[in-house]
Amino acid sequence: MIRKYVAEGLGTALLLVGVVGSGIMGQTLADGNTAIALLANAVATGCMLYVIITTLGPISGAHFNPAVTLAFWLRGEITTRPALGYVLVQVAGGIVGVWATHAMFDQPILQASTTMHRTGIAQWCSEAMATFGLLFVIFGGLKSRPEAVPALVAFYITGAYWFTASTSFANPAVTIARGFSDTFAGIYPGHIAAFIVVQLITVPLAHLILTRLFRD
Amino acid sequence: MIRKYVAEGLGTALLLVGVVGSGIMGQTLADGNTAIALLANAVATGCMLYVIITTLGPISGAHFNPAVTLAFWLRGEITTRPALGYVLVQVAGGIVGVWATHAMFDQPILQASTTMHRTGIAQWCSEAMATFGLLFVIFGGLKSRPEAVPALVAFYITGAYWFTASTSFANPAVTIARGFSDTFAGIYPGHIAAFIVVQLITVPLAHLILTRLFRD
Amino acid sequence: MIRKYVAEGLGTALLLVGVVGSGIMGQTLADGNTAIALLANAVATGCMLYVIITTLGPISGAHFNPAVTLAFWLRGEITTRPALGYVLVQVAGGIVGVWATHAMFDQPILQASTTMHRTGIAQWCSEAMATFGLLFVIFGGLKSRPEAVPALVAFYITGAYWFTASTSFANPAVTIARGFSDTFAGIYPGHIAAFIVVQLITVPLAHLILTRLFRD
Amino acid sequence: MIRKYVAEGLGTALLLVGVVGSGIMGQTLADGNTAIALLANAVATGCMLYVIITTLGPISGAHFNPAVTLAFWLRGEITTRPALGYVLVQVAGGIVGVWATHAMFDQPILQASTTMHRTGIAQWCSEAMATFGLLFVIFGGLKSRPEAVPALVAFYITGAYWFTASTSFANPAVTIARGFSDTFAGIYPGHIAAFIVVQLITVPLAHLILTRLFRD
Repeated sequence: MIRKYVAEGLGTALLLVGVVGSGIMGQTLADGNTAIALLANAVATGCMLYVIITTLGPISGAHFNPAVTLAFWLRGEITTRPALGYVLVQVAGGIVGVWATHAMFDQPILQASTTMHRTGIAQWCSEAMATFGLLFVIFGGLKSRPEAVPALVAFYITGAYWFTASTSFANPAVTIARGFSDTFAGIYPGHIAAFIVVQLITVPLAHLILTRLFRD
Repeated sequence: MIRKYVAEGLGTALLLVGVVGSGIMGQTLADGNTAIALLANAVATGCMLYVIITTLGPISGAHFNPAVTLAFWLRGEITTRPALGYVLVQVAGGIVGVWATHAMFDQPILQASTTMHRTGIAQWCSEAMATFGLLFVIFGGLKSRPEAVPALVAFYITGAYWFTASTSFANPAVTIARGFSDTFAGIYPGHIAAFIVVQLITVPLAHLILTRLFRD
Repeated sequence: MIRKYVAEGLGTALLLVGVVGSGIMGQTLADGNTAIALLANAVATGCMLYVIITTLGPISGAHFNPAVTLAFWLRGEITTRPALGYVLVQVAGGIVGVWATHAMFDQPILQASTTMHRTGIAQWCSEAMATFGLLFVIFGGLKSRPEAVPALVAFYITGAYWFTASTSFANPAVTIARGFSDTFAGIYPGHIAAFIVVQLITVPLAHLILTRLFRD
Repeated sequence: MIRKYVAEGLGTALLLVGVVGSGIMGQTLADGNTAIALLANAVATGCMLYVIITTLGPISGAHFNPAVTLAFWLRGEITTRPALGYVLVQVAGGIVGVWATHAMFDQPILQASTTMHRTGIAQWCSEAMATFGLLFVIFGGLKSRPEAVPALVAFYITGAYWFTASTSFANPAVTIARGFSDTFAGIYPGHIAAFIVVQLITVPLAHLILTRLFRD
């Protein structure tokens, strides 16, 4: 069990390194062209997702995301106690990942985001869509071609950076951790709660639709 | 059967989210450099195609495209009534996908495109080429390596955004739906009919050539 | 046999559509930033290569390249007469592909390139390297993982656009065809012969090294 | 054994062609937008890694990196003498690769880098992270899905160009060779030793963690 928790914590930390690090690098180099920064951000995040899901999947299932853990709990594939443990190490791992990224980029370790535009109905619609889509590719992939799940999640998120207005957080642990970084990928801490509420409300709805769509 | 229709409708809706959403995001961020916007648009569309074909393929065959449904009908792999049902839900799904995208990007839901350059002989040649190529990769892939079809279609369309002058609609449902969006991916409604005619005329021609080329 | 020739001709035509079309689109949209144009050019070419090698490989072997046909002839895997036939349809197919691209982009069909910088020792070193590398991935891939050859060639060429100074023609049929296009991908006809000489001289040298390296 | 050394030397040479060549091309064309240059650099390097690991893996194991050879030595999967041989040909191959690249790009063969910013604690943290991550994907991949290792390493490094502040050298042979190039990918020779020290110190630490995490 410890090994599963380590895998979830390490994986989520690496995911945040991918998201926040490439955001900093992209913005630093892109000379004001945000599209290029976001392209780098999206590609690097997709690369990291492919890598951590492939390597850690056999150990912990590679959730790295409380919304995904909640969905597996609703499906009865994880019991309550380990699910809570997963969520805890995901959140902690994500924050540690952000701090490690700040160290690599010579930034103050402790930060709070001042990015103010991640709020409002359109952004929340985006997060509902993003979370539904993520569960769609995971559970659809597990049904149709389990060995493709790392590529499915990686490609989905790389695309979703662009086709949702919020750039697809779709992950409460990632949302919390990004509150700790006043960089390209940041989110103002006061806007975190609403994102998480939308993400978590979407899970049972997606569960309902997807279990019917992907039933045997 | 209902489940197949749901899969076709949902898949086409998601495809339009991918196409229109990434177009809006790309144009918003690219600061006037259309090449970067189109690169994001092409990559995000390819990602979405890979995802929806992999997950929904086992349910409905993952057409998401009346031209593809017509081709399967010509090959005798789908009968007339379900084929018509497919086309209906593809068109409806596509429009719903565009509306959902507008909601995510805080835009008026109902729009009509004013993009005027998608007409003329060169554009129609492009759509003929684009549609032929799409059927070529689908039927060639089904013959040579069926499990590669999601990647084949995704890579083909990502490339075809660039190597055809029309950015490769190659899909009547997508063409109609893009008429409902006055954004980067839009097409002036008066130019839709000609695109669809070219796409549908190409299908039997491609069918003739490809059944000979890929026969046993 | 006819079907093999059709596959080689069609495949090479599509390859040139990919190369020349994405070059035109990239240059048109990139607003003077050649790096973005080349990125689109490289990605679109890689996508096309993956597609045509996967679908047409089982029919003709998917050479699309007289240098590759020469290498297979040196290995004794194709006899002289069909090899000559392959080369003929590759060259003809490539030219037809360029013309089709011009039609799609509303350009004069008949053109002669005026791009003058594709000459000199550095460019020729690049073509030697590019051709060696192409044969390296093909014959190395056929030995280590035959089903990966489409991805190997696609990734190799996408990268080689960047890591060789000539953007890696590595293909006499492509070189000739690109002489017929006064666009981004063009090469001044007077510089074609030297490129082809370098490409063809590299084949027996690569054959010597690679048969030793990849022997059983 | 000779064939293994040739594979390690040739592979590392090609890796440096990929890294240094695409850096030169990217910087030349990107018109001052370093993000685009780095995107090309990252993509081309990933392409090359996929290619050389797939083709040469069955011959030599495809280390191309003294840090990786050290890790395999710690795991008892290579003995001391061949390990030293590997390191020697990796370093020599890397330098030859840089020289070949200079020839292709019409540059003076012999150069010494004057790039001064690759030093300091943040850069060294980045190299520790980069090296840990590389060993993580190799040994995690060998455990969970060995046939995915070429893709894992390629995607990891493509992403790590962006999510580490040093653009992820993570390889002493590559670090030494890049000292010989006063181009985009260069590193001032006086800063090489510290990079190598960090990379090599990270290996036993990563070995300790990863053998526990990926044990049976």
